[in-house]
Amino acid sequence: MKASAIRYENVAVSTRIRLARNFADYPFPRRLGKASAREIVGIVSAALREVDAFELHYMDSIPSRLARVYIERYQISRDLWKNRDISAVLFLKRDGGSRTFEKELSDILTENVSVMINEEDHIREQYFVRGFDLKRGYERLSGIDESIAETIPFACDEELGYLTACPTNVGTGLRASVMLFLPALARRDRMREITAKLKRKGLTVRGMFGEGSGAEGDLYQISNEITLGARDTDILAIVEREVNDLVEEEIVERDMLQEEGGAALIDRILRSYGILTNCAQIDEHEFLERLSDVKLGVALGMLGGEMSDLDTLLVSTRPANLMELAGETLTEEGQDIFRARYAGRTLRRLCMLDEEMRENLFAEE
Amino acid sequence: MKASAIRYENVAVSTRIRLARNFADYPFPRRLGKASAREIVGIVSAALREVDAFELHYMDSIPSRLARVYIERYQISRDLWKNRDISAVLFLKRDGGSRTFEKELSDILTENVSVMINEEDHIREQYFVRGFDLKRGYERLSGIDESIAETIPFACDEELGYLTACPTNVGTGLRASVMLFLPALARRDRMREITAKLKRKGLTVRGMFGEGSGAEGDLYQISNEITLGARDTDILAIVEREVNDLVEEEIVERDMLQEEGGAALIDRILRSYGILTNCAQIDEHEFLERLSDVKLGVALGMLGGEMSDLDTLLVSTRPANLMELAGETLTEEGQDIFRARYAGRTLRRLCMLDEEMRENLFAEE
Repeated sequence: MKASAIRYENVAVSTRIRLARNFADYPFPRRLGKASAREIVGIVSAALREVDAFELHYMDSIPSRLARVYIERYQISRDLWKNRDISAVLFLKRDGGSRTFEKELSDILTENVSVMINEEDHIREQYFVRGFDLKRGYERLSGIDESIAETIPFACDEELGYLTACPTNVGTGLRASVMLFLPALARRDRMREITAKLKRKGLTVRGMFGEGSGAEGDLYQISNEITLGARDTDILAIVEREVNDLVEEEIVERDMLQEEGGAALIDRILRSYGILTNCAQIDEHEFLERLSDVKLGVALGMLGGEMSDLDTLLVSTRPANLMELAGETLTEEGQDIFRARYAGRTLRRLCMLDEEMRENLFAEE
Repeated sequence: MKASAIRYENVAVSTRIRLARNFADYPFPRRLGKASAREIVGIVSAALREVDAFELHYMDSIPSRLARVYIERYQISRDLWKNRDISAVLFLKRDGGSRTFEKELSDILTENVSVMINEEDHIREQYFVRGFDLKRGYERLSGIDESIAETIPFACDEELGYLTACPTNVGTGLRASVMLFLPALARRDRMREITAKLKRKGLTVRGMFGEGSGAEGDLYQISNEITLGARDTDILAIVEREVNDLVEEEIVERDMLQEEGGAALIDRILRSYGILTNCAQIDEHEFLERLSDVKLGVALGMLGGEMSDLDTLLVSTRPANLMELAGETLTEEGQDIFRARYAGRTLRRLCMLDEEMRENLFAEE
């Protein structure tokens, strides 16, 4: 890893490891009765009671408002919510009490474990961590996985490996995803070529919101396509290597961007900063675009601030989290106004740009 | 006048009075020899020596750079510069010494007298004052006019009045112009109708840069079209009345704009403020548009600051003044960068917008 840690952090936003598992003695969730579904919830909860302090939530007891909050925070999947008549989730218990919305969200985005039950498969064990750390996630999930496996046998084929509801997950049931912030590669029109190259190596590139979504905010999710006929360690090694290469390429392109960008690049970044810190209403699409400029400004050292704070802001300004923060249901227009107000206040605090920093920007020109 | 003085000031930017005069014994400048032209310069200078402390500048001794600075500051006309082989100008002497560029410019835009010699006519006496004050300007020019008239006779016809090179000025030779900031009337699409109405009353509406120019920055110059067959006092009374009406109308429209504008209006004003206080390059056209938003914000009490400072900034950021300020010749791109830098620094100082003001903006919503 040639790039320094801080620059590295400015590219890799988060890492997610997911294991898909099914019990041999039950049909897949799509043909699962309510009673059996409850049994599975019971088995998994009991198995994990020994591992860590989890709290169980049945999805049919959660208001849709809150489900959307969890989805936006990557804590649960959309499919878990769709399956809510039989599904549940185990969240790691966190200190409750007087934590603010921001603190709680930041904690969840720093490190999080959730075990989804009766989603597409009986069990989806998921680990989420800020930055790039495949090993840590895999080890954390292994403990959980083994504890569950000790209770009743997983559906497993000697040749194929773990059996799953969807053939793309058969084998290891492992998906390793890394969210990367690639503004320079995107602006220099490199993403089509990179996506094709990664596809040949068995990796998929998706937008921030998963399958089929565009890459808003210059965020790209890289994950393994193949789970069949490969070992966990092979999959992790491929993802590790390709993500490292991509981070290197992004950093090289950022240097080029900064070298060639001149006043136009500074102008674009500072205008986005000026708009975000001042506007009175802004929709999510424009917000993501402008925040990407500001993040690039932070990455290039033009603006003060911590990348992790900006990535937290990216989640807190999504519709459901925004309404949670506002403490009320908001129309789309109301969301745009609240987003502008909250993000403006936050960015004015986080990304200070004093007169001296401004002078330096121009001096470097 | 129902509107309070402060609101009034936020509409009327400046007043200009001009008297066109010719000497009976000389041909009009377009057919004037160099020797005669010099004689006229001598006569006018001598006549005004008694009135006030003027300093004489022959236009052919002024670098074009400086001539453009004077034109942008409304001190001389483009035609005076075109006629530079025979033309000259008398400026009121000002305290020299350690005054800054900003202070000097602000003084000139606060009140200024200049007497142009051998422009289209032998003499163009001009008075410029911030705000709306026709009477003050007319009285000031009358003293100058009488002093010159005492030396040698003006070209005058008993029926027609003063004779001038262009028939549109024959009669009183008086042009009274008022520059108005009309963002609300302009945005609510009222200017076409108003221009037609004023035309029927013998008044002309022009853009900021005079004849044929567009109304950039929502600035409109109202002046009398007719000088023939009317008395000075009649002309001044018409302009006075129509400008008063227009100011009233603008204030009514501003109230409507603010009432109906909601978050979209606040958003537009704050975005322009955010861009102007942060951008790294901006061309004159966009600058005028955004400064108009900021001025409207000040007028509506959303932003702090003095309108007169913003009107001074509007002149200091024009190409020639900008280069004078920079102390060097700049390419167009260089001007855009320097304009952004200077205007940003100035606006961050002049139009403060603290957290409390921001909260109040949203609270009023």
